[in-house]
Amino acid sequence: MSHQFTEQDHQFMQRALALASKGIYTAAPNPAVGCVLVKNGEIVGEGFHFKAGQPHAERMALAQAGEKAKGATAYVTLEPCSHYGRTPPCALGLIDAGVAKVIAAMQDPNPQVAGKGLRLLAEAGIESAVNLFEDSAEKLNKGFLKRMRQGVPFIQLKLAMSLDGRTAMASGESKWITGGESRSDVQKMRAKSSALLSTSETVLADDPSLNVRWEDFTDDLKADYPKETVRQPVRVILDSQHRIQPTHRLFQTESPVWLVSSQERDLSTFPSFCEQIVLPKENLLQALMLELGKRQINLLWVEAGANLAGSLIEQKLVDELIIYMAPKLLGDQARGLCQLPHLEWLSDAPVWQLNEFQQIGEDIKLIYTPKGS
Amino acid sequence: MSHQFTEQDHQFMQRALALASKGIYTAAPNPAVGCVLVKNGEIVGEGFHFKAGQPHAERMALAQAGEKAKGATAYVTLEPCSHYGRTPPCALGLIDAGVAKVIAAMQDPNPQVAGKGLRLLAEAGIESAVNLFEDSAEKLNKGFLKRMRQGVPFIQLKLAMSLDGRTAMASGESKWITGGESRSDVQKMRAKSSALLSTSETVLADDPSLNVRWEDFTDDLKADYPKETVRQPVRVILDSQHRIQPTHRLFQTESPVWLVSSQERDLSTFPSFCEQIVLPKENLLQALMLELGKRQINLLWVEAGANLAGSLIEQKLVDELIIYMAPKLLGDQARGLCQLPHLEWLSDAPVWQLNEFQQIGEDIKLIYTPKGS
Repeated sequence: MSHQFTEQDHQFMQRALALASKGIYTAAPNPAVGCVLVKNGEIVGEGFHFKAGQPHAERMALAQAGEKAKGATAYVTLEPCSHYGRTPPCALGLIDAGVAKVIAAMQDPNPQVAGKGLRLLAEAGIESAVNLFEDSAEKLNKGFLKRMRQGVPFIQLKLAMSLDGRTAMASGESKWITGGESRSDVQKMRAKSSALLSTSETVLADDPSLNVRWEDFTDDLKADYPKETVRQPVRVILDSQHRIQPTHRLFQTESPVWLVSSQERDLSTFPSFCEQIVLPKENLLQALMLELGKRQINLLWVEAGANLAGSLIEQKLVDELIIYMAPKLLGDQARGLCQLPHLEWLSDAPVWQLNEFQQIGEDIKLIYTPKGS
Repeated sequence: MSHQFTEQDHQFMQRALALASKGIYTAAPNPAVGCVLVKNGEIVGEGFHFKAGQPHAERMALAQAGEKAKGATAYVTLEPCSHYGRTPPCALGLIDAGVAKVIAAMQDPNPQVAGKGLRLLAEAGIESAVNLFEDSAEKLNKGFLKRMRQGVPFIQLKLAMSLDGRTAMASGESKWITGGESRSDVQKMRAKSSALLSTSETVLADDPSLNVRWEDFTDDLKADYPKETVRQPVRVILDSQHRIQPTHRLFQTESPVWLVSSQERDLSTFPSFCEQIVLPKENLLQALMLELGKRQINLLWVEAGANLAGSLIEQKLVDELIIYMAPKLLGDQARGLCQLPHLEWLSDAPVWQLNEFQQIGEDIKLIYTPKGS
């Protein structure tokens, strides 16, 4: 039987979701979670999970509430955990504090939790309910949730193009097709990601840093995500021919670079934050995603050329297509968006579904998900 | 000094604009105009212009109001005309009826009217005011207004493409990239147009009718625009090499076809509704637009391939780019949107501005205007 939620439940869960969102840039590989403790219609404690190793949302809220937690209702955006990780299980914390009721936005699909947190509560005689604003809760942690469910990251393919689907002039000239606001938005998307994926082709052509540049954030984001807490995503570079050199700009940012190829190489001249991932050539992309899942990559942000874009699309690995479309026309000679060499008939063309539309400066941002997924 | 409009003025002018819009499918080459006569806060007469040769909006409203027009305020979406055309000037009609005040959404840029209608009213001692919802009034008649101001039609270039800016598979297969709702919308856009422009290339490839098919209208449009009043736009076909034949499907709809080339041809085997327009090769497109202006074409709807699309864009002839974007990816081998052979540098790429965004079924419709226009 589904629970009847009150207007008050809606209001406090929305508050918990707002708190959770404070962790979206930093919580990975953990989920972003928010918690609100309410007693007699008043908030007595609030918390969110900021970063792995730091308190979970429930613990923070309980600490704030102190004695007032007794008899309170806890609103949590994800089922409270039941296992001993770096911190003791939150479900026990809620029980110990004498909380009367727990409302969770959604169950945790983490196999170590999945319903066990709620069961622990029930065994302690604490009433609980789930599935309140579960869509919002799901959206907040799509990377973590995909990894828990399928063992692979949530893959966002970024494409920046002209109105006529071109990414560069015939000469290769591509700075800048989209406007400053779009590039700032890309910084935000990078900041939310656990890792960025690109190719040696892109590195050789543009020598990008592929880092998060706080200076390029919008003022809003700067306020939300102070410079000293900025986490750099891992840079994952497909480099089958070992063309990446220690002199590339990638290595000027001290944060992990994982070079992917099918053959072991000597990395002794590379900085210590550079590692390699060696995988068989066959089905390399699928194997890479499983490996990244094992390495706790939640959200993977892909910035690459038409070749990798096409391969990811053909292999149905893309969870979201994120298109920045500039109001320019580059014409037929300019470079295309994605290579789909095996596509012959219109009826076989991959079909997508528009999920979000946003005007960003003079550009538009379109988010598509695979149709039927 | 600008007039202070009241809330009542706003309300009645909006009503007049709604009436005017009833003429958008049929009024061409005339403008769509609406008129509301108000006395003591109540509507005593309403009218709109349906079709050339039929009464103007003011006349219709005056006829409905009868004696009550005396002392009334007239709300008109365009300055009342002052010249004798197929009907006597509306300004005189309003004067004769004893109207006390006239509020016009905008001045008529028609050189035969331009301010003269208002002057006639002033000379008769009738108070008048202009510029109330002038943006809406402008939008309603952008074809007519462009022709009056510049002697050429308002040119809308329709492009139907995939997410990656492709219009057909490499094989030429292109039915259907966009969905049924988009195609229905195209029928509506055609219905609003005075003429459609295409090329013999397109006719030879697809043998289209390029007509307005009432059966393909949405139910809403069917209700607004009954079958028996459907006006077929003129089909204008660029056919420099005289490749169009009387057997083409174009000629199955009995409505004007104008074949454009630089050389006179024998049309004796063609139906009588087929004419030719012969123009010098040099600057043919510009010359054609002036000719179409002379022939009273207000809105020109262009459906053509990458070649003509590119030429119109390069020659800065396009007033609106109307893009139907299907949520599909066709890949780099597929055919591109527009040829811009002279474009070498990104900084020279034509820049546009998004004016409208609409979801149409699974597609999106984007309307762009040239930046800075």
